[in-house]
Amino acid sequence: MISDLSPTALAGLPRRVTVYEVGPRDGLQNESQILDTELKAELIRRLFQAGFTRVEATSFVNPKSVPQLADAESVLKRLASSDLERVAALVPNQRGLDRALSCGVRHVAVFASATETFAQRNLNMSVDESIETFKPVVERALSEGLSVRGYLSMCFGDPWEGAVSAERVAVLAHRLFQLGCGELSIGDTIGVATPGQVVEVISAVLSVGVELQQLAMHFHDTYGQALANALASLQQGVTTIDASAGGLGGCPFARRATGNLASEDLLFQLNGLGIETGVDIRAVADASAWLVAELGRPSPSRVVGAILARGDQ
Amino acid sequence: MISDLSPTALAGLPRRVTVYEVGPRDGLQNESQILDTELKAELIRRLFQAGFTRVEATSFVNPKSVPQLADAESVLKRLASSDLERVAALVPNQRGLDRALSCGVRHVAVFASATETFAQRNLNMSVDESIETFKPVVERALSEGLSVRGYLSMCFGDPWEGAVSAERVAVLAHRLFQLGCGELSIGDTIGVATPGQVVEVISAVLSVGVELQQLAMHFHDTYGQALANALASLQQGVTTIDASAGGLGGCPFARRATGNLASEDLLFQLNGLGIETGVDIRAVADASAWLVAELGRPSPSRVVGAILARGDQ
Repeated sequence: MISDLSPTALAGLPRRVTVYEVGPRDGLQNESQILDTELKAELIRRLFQAGFTRVEATSFVNPKSVPQLADAESVLKRLASSDLERVAALVPNQRGLDRALSCGVRHVAVFASATETFAQRNLNMSVDESIETFKPVVERALSEGLSVRGYLSMCFGDPWEGAVSAERVAVLAHRLFQLGCGELSIGDTIGVATPGQVVEVISAVLSVGVELQQLAMHFHDTYGQALANALASLQQGVTTIDASAGGLGGCPFARRATGNLASEDLLFQLNGLGIETGVDIRAVADASAWLVAELGRPSPSRVVGAILARGDQ
Repeated sequence: MISDLSPTALAGLPRRVTVYEVGPRDGLQNESQILDTELKAELIRRLFQAGFTRVEATSFVNPKSVPQLADAESVLKRLASSDLERVAALVPNQRGLDRALSCGVRHVAVFASATETFAQRNLNMSVDESIETFKPVVERALSEGLSVRGYLSMCFGDPWEGAVSAERVAVLAHRLFQLGCGELSIGDTIGVATPGQVVEVISAVLSVGVELQQLAMHFHDTYGQALANALASLQQGVTTIDASAGGLGGCPFARRATGNLASEDLLFQLNGLGIETGVDIRAVADASAWLVAELGRPSPSRVVGAILARGDQ
């Protein structure tokens, strides 16, 4: 019977993976209660201490749109310079880039949508208009020596438009890549992807010239699929997976977008697979346990829940 | 770059999978509040209506050990004969088998542990003693024309003994198989497995002569790994995955064993992969939503949570 086994079933796994921590931005932006600036700064500090190399700290969007992140500058001012040079921040336009530059941020991200409806709701413009808007932003960021990540959201389905084709994702990924983004994050904003679709989309994106090491996958756990989709991504050789400490997250412009893949649940899998990350899972879980205690509610992360239930916190 | 892709990364998936529903037994046995007998019967009815071919309905253990399942006979009496002939029930010994036979049950299961500590705690005997105890039970069940499933728990780690070797699992699986069990369920009782270990254990069990179609995998979601482990199992060609409606579950003898893999979350993945199950995910989620409303708490299933949050329940 051993011959029935495919010995390559878990082949293709990378030796080392970057867990790109989005908790302070993607995790907190949907919190209805405005959090204390120092709490946000302390979360970022704890995450760097846990070993993350990149922490997405905030977003320089219009404070009226996302009041939770209106204190972006104040949060960053509280960080040590060694942390500040490693944070990333979202910049939707030139004004956002101005703010990021004035804070000393070295890593920025622009964010486009794979669907027209979400582009209108999230950015108040068409997909084409958003990419035109990003073009000079990316150019200036690159000329200032910054690294630029491009997000593409709703890549696996959209609450208004339904299915999204892998070809459309690939075409838009290519356009973001052509703008000069050094890394692309392909997002399942509403958490509807399953592993076959993940393989299909990765294949499509790689086919337009994006290199594996330029690709990040970003999953939400709305339907419990995030970690299995991460596994399917790893089997394709993907080396960067976005995740959020404690599984916090959502999107104020997409009600059905619930928590991100929890960093701890991903790290548990990566540790079990012997894949290096440089991140201490226990330190991340401790940071999440501290944060949810501050927020006064349970953590969506199974690992954090299990550690707290065990009482060895 | 397309050449870097492994086209076989999701190869090996079966076309059809049996989701073996353990909710009424594994899901409810750990509930501290004793549930109404009719509620249990109604849950079983709803699950069969949703399309499951096998529902593990109860356990004929000593009522003093598991008071929640003390009404096993009364639950089964409330079922239509078409449902009764499809339920499965746990039988720890001859007395349990007597009770199952007197109810008209046609599918029974014995349950052994891969570790000595859990055997002592769960069964109050050594692993060898438990297998000796099961031997005449399985023989008699088979002579009565029943089908017999064998559970092997703690196959990926044990809270007292730590790591469990794949070789030990294979040897014990072989012994259960030699007793005459037609199906073996390999359990990650405390939810610590990761996909590489899953592939290793499946490989080991198949190497001792167990056929793929006789193998079921049973995951708990304590650390959020259950669905990714199910995916790894499917990639090995496994055709039966145990799951619990709404992700309820645990084990009264292993405090750290929290919820089972949620049937709905598994079905969402299987549907997305185009794998047939014959089960209506919406009907299962409706049953789970009804049950958690009766229990007065949220569902651990992400799918059930998402459906309820969307308000289209």
